[in-house]
Amino acid sequence: MKEYIKETEGGICAPKGFYAASAAAGIKYQGRTDMALIYSEKDCITAGTFTSNLVKAAPVKWDMRIVEEGTPVRAVVVNSGIANAATGAAGMEICEKTAEKMSALYGGVKDSVLVASTGVIGMQIDPEKICRGCELLYEAKAATKEAATAAAQAIMTTDTHKKEVSVSLTLTDGSEVRIGAMTKGSGMIHPNMCTMLGFVTTDADIDKKLLKKVLKEVVDESFNMISVDGDTSTNDTYVVLANAAAGNKKIESAGEDLERFKEALMYVSVYLAKQMAGDGEGATALFECHVYNAADKTAAKKLAKSVVCSSLCKAAIYGHDSNFGRFLCALGYSGAAFDPDKVDLYYESAAGKLKIVENGMGTDYDEEEATKLLSEEAVTVHVDMHAGEDEATAWGCDLSYDYVKINADYRS
Amino acid sequence: MKEYIKETEGGICAPKGFYAASAAAGIKYQGRTDMALIYSEKDCITAGTFTSNLVKAAPVKWDMRIVEEGTPVRAVVVNSGIANAATGAAGMEICEKTAEKMSALYGGVKDSVLVASTGVIGMQIDPEKICRGCELLYEAKAATKEAATAAAQAIMTTDTHKKEVSVSLTLTDGSEVRIGAMTKGSGMIHPNMCTMLGFVTTDADIDKKLLKKVLKEVVDESFNMISVDGDTSTNDTYVVLANAAAGNKKIESAGEDLERFKEALMYVSVYLAKQMAGDGEGATALFECHVYNAADKTAAKKLAKSVVCSSLCKAAIYGHDSNFGRFLCALGYSGAAFDPDKVDLYYESAAGKLKIVENGMGTDYDEEEATKLLSEEAVTVHVDMHAGEDEATAWGCDLSYDYVKINADYRS
Repeated sequence: MKEYIKETEGGICAPKGFYAASAAAGIKYQGRTDMALIYSEKDCITAGTFTSNLVKAAPVKWDMRIVEEGTPVRAVVVNSGIANAATGAAGMEICEKTAEKMSALYGGVKDSVLVASTGVIGMQIDPEKICRGCELLYEAKAATKEAATAAAQAIMTTDTHKKEVSVSLTLTDGSEVRIGAMTKGSGMIHPNMCTMLGFVTTDADIDKKLLKKVLKEVVDESFNMISVDGDTSTNDTYVVLANAAAGNKKIESAGEDLERFKEALMYVSVYLAKQMAGDGEGATALFECHVYNAADKTAAKKLAKSVVCSSLCKAAIYGHDSNFGRFLCALGYSGAAFDPDKVDLYYESAAGKLKIVENGMGTDYDEEEATKLLSEEAVTVHVDMHAGEDEATAWGCDLSYDYVKINADYRS
Repeated sequence: MKEYIKETEGGICAPKGFYAASAAAGIKYQGRTDMALIYSEKDCITAGTFTSNLVKAAPVKWDMRIVEEGTPVRAVVVNSGIANAATGAAGMEICEKTAEKMSALYGGVKDSVLVASTGVIGMQIDPEKICRGCELLYEAKAATKEAATAAAQAIMTTDTHKKEVSVSLTLTDGSEVRIGAMTKGSGMIHPNMCTMLGFVTTDADIDKKLLKKVLKEVVDESFNMISVDGDTSTNDTYVVLANAAAGNKKIESAGEDLERFKEALMYVSVYLAKQMAGDGEGATALFECHVYNAADKTAAKKLAKSVVCSSLCKAAIYGHDSNFGRFLCALGYSGAAFDPDKVDLYYESAAGKLKIVENGMGTDYDEEEATKLLSEEAVTVHVDMHAGEDEATAWGCDLSYDYVKINADYRS
């Protein structure tokens, strides 16, 4: 990691002026927290990426409008348990009621509140419960790492652990800005809960257009490169709130400071993306595919993603089975053009690195050594396309025995 | 089924002049047959569809060339156990050796033999074993339904049952022609063995160009509409052999007879496609999605396929869980444009039919009744897009408990 980026504690509360809270509102789950609040003392500019699904949840529509219009934002209210998707006009009213309730508590306008939901599609949220939850959240808000962690836990659905991170970044003039983030979402082992929600807070003073541009570039190489089950959620959301509380010289043009901010946001996003990729229930390994010397960036991304999304490849990783044909097969249907007879492929893990394929055919490698390499908790498959100079990395997880018994043991 | 199409016995041996055989050549499996032969007394014209994977198995390249060049074909030699993919020049030599061996047995040219393989990628086939297998096959060949069935069994990998069918077709002048077929391949529960091999025999006298055109139209609405795991195999093959032994008035132009032939080929292909879709290990139900009133045919196909390919939807079917949001979600990311607020959705099975979604929102349906409908062995989800007049049907299977424990029980 670059010397001007340092990992810190505090999650979404690490940046100045941000508060967090969690509450048990009984939206659907009992005996656990199911609502979270991100609150900023100062107005925030926002940038966001949302689901590409035509069927968009009500909160996604609500947030897209506010982020698009550029209304200053003060708070984000999140609930788990019910997704508020396929809920029609009633669903939009819930978003409005929630925003009205929260904004009234701090004396702002309803459009200064973003909302996000994750859970079952097609169910309506009880307005009384979510409004009561807003009161609990506002009372409980605190600018502490404990509050941040509790918020990260409240938005979990089938995640096996909370996902948060924060860094401090030193700009060229020596001033410090902070970035904090939390996400929820686990791998393809939970297709019914695959919604990804992510929230980034920063006290950096940065131009809105640049923030939007940087966010898109970062998401394309982080969250858009992790394996999912193909079931693009109706609720996927990744939003950045910037409140300028750091008082840094505003980043308003391309240059070293913008690059540093992008690197810090990339670090935070890739960290969380890998956390999500590795969190499929039953997953025993983080599975990374690094494609290099590809004809172009688009091809590199398609190829890397095709491998980590492949059930065959995931099962092979779980089975510690060097069934390299599966990797070649996945590259072959990725949609990217390449010469199969030029592909070299390597396995790498804590146990070492081994060349498995040369010019599209298996090398005379040692099966035992390959199995040893594939038995580590994090395995990388490197693919040299010998076609150009672009590269890309994608992340996924293996498929556990419970998930696909037969495939992993296929060759034995 | 139309009155001029009748299902018959005999599989690939039902058409006149076709022989079948199976043999245990020990290519990879022990204690079972692993090679099959289709042999025609007369030269056959051929038409075929092959995998779109850039990484093509050697036998696929061999067959594509022969079918493309239009060389008259007399035999098809199939082996299971090893796919002969990612095997380089040595793999192509195996195809040539096999064709030379078989053609020598009946005194033909090597290009009159098609070859097909299914199994592990990256392993080489022992030339001695496959050549010995050719001898056993040629000796054993017989024009009987028993021989046809044994051949259909020999090409199985993880299939739980053999897949064959045959029909007789009456043309407008009263003459009879026959179509027989066998396939292997099971659903997405076996991503490592998802190769689909299909062989059709017919004694119809038909123009080669028309046969090619009809085959493409049929495959697009049958095998291309069943759910796969996304891992397009390196070996997928569907070939038709026509030997004209029926002596019918040659079908050489568009018209009623060509339509009848297409319908018969469609019946055979859809029958086998559904057999494959329903044969995922652990699958408990055939899952059909019928999309109608779509804006156009392409949209209808995308929408129907998106639903049956969705892990969410498959898990819901297995769990007999009316989690209709999953169906809307799958439609939403299908890539087809539509108005989510206009969609109506119904469940239909032997237990009846029920409207679940109206104008994109859940109706006030009876959960118990829905569960009852979803508990049958064959379940159809009908989707009315209210956008146009085109329709399409796709077939898949559910996801068994072993496959994805948690998803099916999500809402309970």
